Amino acid sequence: MAESNPLPLVLLAEQFAKLPGIGMKTAQRLAYYVMTMSKADAKAFSDSILNAHSTIHYCKVCQNFTDSDVCLICENAKRDSSTICVVEGPKDVSAFERTNEYKGLYHVLHGLISPMDGITPEKIRIKELLARIHNSNVEEVIMATNPTVEGEATAMYISKLLKPLGIKVTRLAFGLPMGGILEYADEITLFKALENRNEI
Amino acid sequence: MAESNPLPLVLLAEQFAKLPGIGMKTAQRLAYYVMTMSKADAKAFSDSILNAHSTIHYCKVCQNFTDSDVCLICENAKRDSSTICVVEGPKDVSAFERTNEYKGLYHVLHGLISPMDGITPEKIRIKELLARIHNSNVEEVIMATNPTVEGEATAMYISKLLKPLGIKVTRLAFGLPMGGILEYADEITLFKALENRNEI
Repeated sequence: MAESNPLPLVLLAEQFAKLPGIGMKTAQRLAYYVMTMSKADAKAFSDSILNAHSTIHYCKVCQNFTDSDVCLICENAKRDSSTICVVEGPKDVSAFERTNEYKGLYHVLHGLISPMDGITPEKIRIKELLARIHNSNVEEVIMATNPTVEGEATAMYISKLLKPLGIKVTRLAFGLPMGGILEYADEITLFKALENRNEI
Repeated sequence: MAESNPLPLVLLAEQFAKLPGIGMKTAQRLAYYVMTMSKADAKAFSDSILNAHSTIHYCKVCQNFTDSDVCLICENAKRDSSTICVVEGPKDVSAFERTNEYKGLYHVLHGLISPMDGITPEKIRIKELLARIHNSNVEEVIMATNPTVEGEATAMYISKLLKPLGIKVTRLAFGLPMGGILEYADEITLFKALENRNEI
């Protein structure tokens, strides 16, 4: 931000610029916009950050974000607890929920195995998945990681751990374009990928 | 945001979605990102909003944002106080400052006259400009509003108020952008470039 701007405004723009996909010019525009907000709106915005950050943690069952012990999906008795859909992150849960077709549960890994980036299997929530399966009636685990190198590797790694337990492990159908990003897939493509899943 | 998400996260995403140019999907991504920040970083982000909003107000001279009585540009004795560049908003001040060429002062209107949107001359900072000129040694006022219908109308309106005071009123030159390609210039820009041609 140009030196002509007062320091608090420069600092605010720098905060916005830390967010993913927000460049310095956009950050400056957002900072200027905050200046035009009412005092109450600015306070609400500020509070929502702290509030979300302090009240939200991982669901002790599926590891998705929640503000209680167990998330809304895990505690919903109408969901089919015999099926677990394993995803990379919370945004993928939202994507599946938007299809309104999947009725099972989820497991959020919070990452994908990527030795190049130092992400070993221990660094993502695989052991929580195994512990959960040991104490449950799970019949099928759907590997719903992205169709990328890391996503495929993670799916293969987990399926090799689960198969000896006699659990059916499936993979999303490749209706998803290879190299694409799950979060941006349209609902129909995502539903097709779910419907045509294959055992691995 | 999907119903599967906890309320504080949904509320945070809604706050991000209020920002200009941020859609609901981006807002959700930003909210998830906040969840991955450290507690200290989240607090710094939250504080920067409140801090900027509470400490920043309009410079009593030029109406640009400042955290003191008079902004850094207005209080800089090295700036040429005989020239005022009139702009629509603070972002335009930043744009001119980036050129490192303009040494005069600014006046920020915080909007453009637009009767269709209910923005009459009284709603932007024109009277502050007139009051300022009455008590000063200003010789030239540069109308640096955008070359849009509203920008042109505002420039014309202000110039008619200033000319009777014996002040030189100028307008930014309009022509081909530097580095631009003539073939792709629109007709009006090309006509302006031709009309305002200079002897070399």
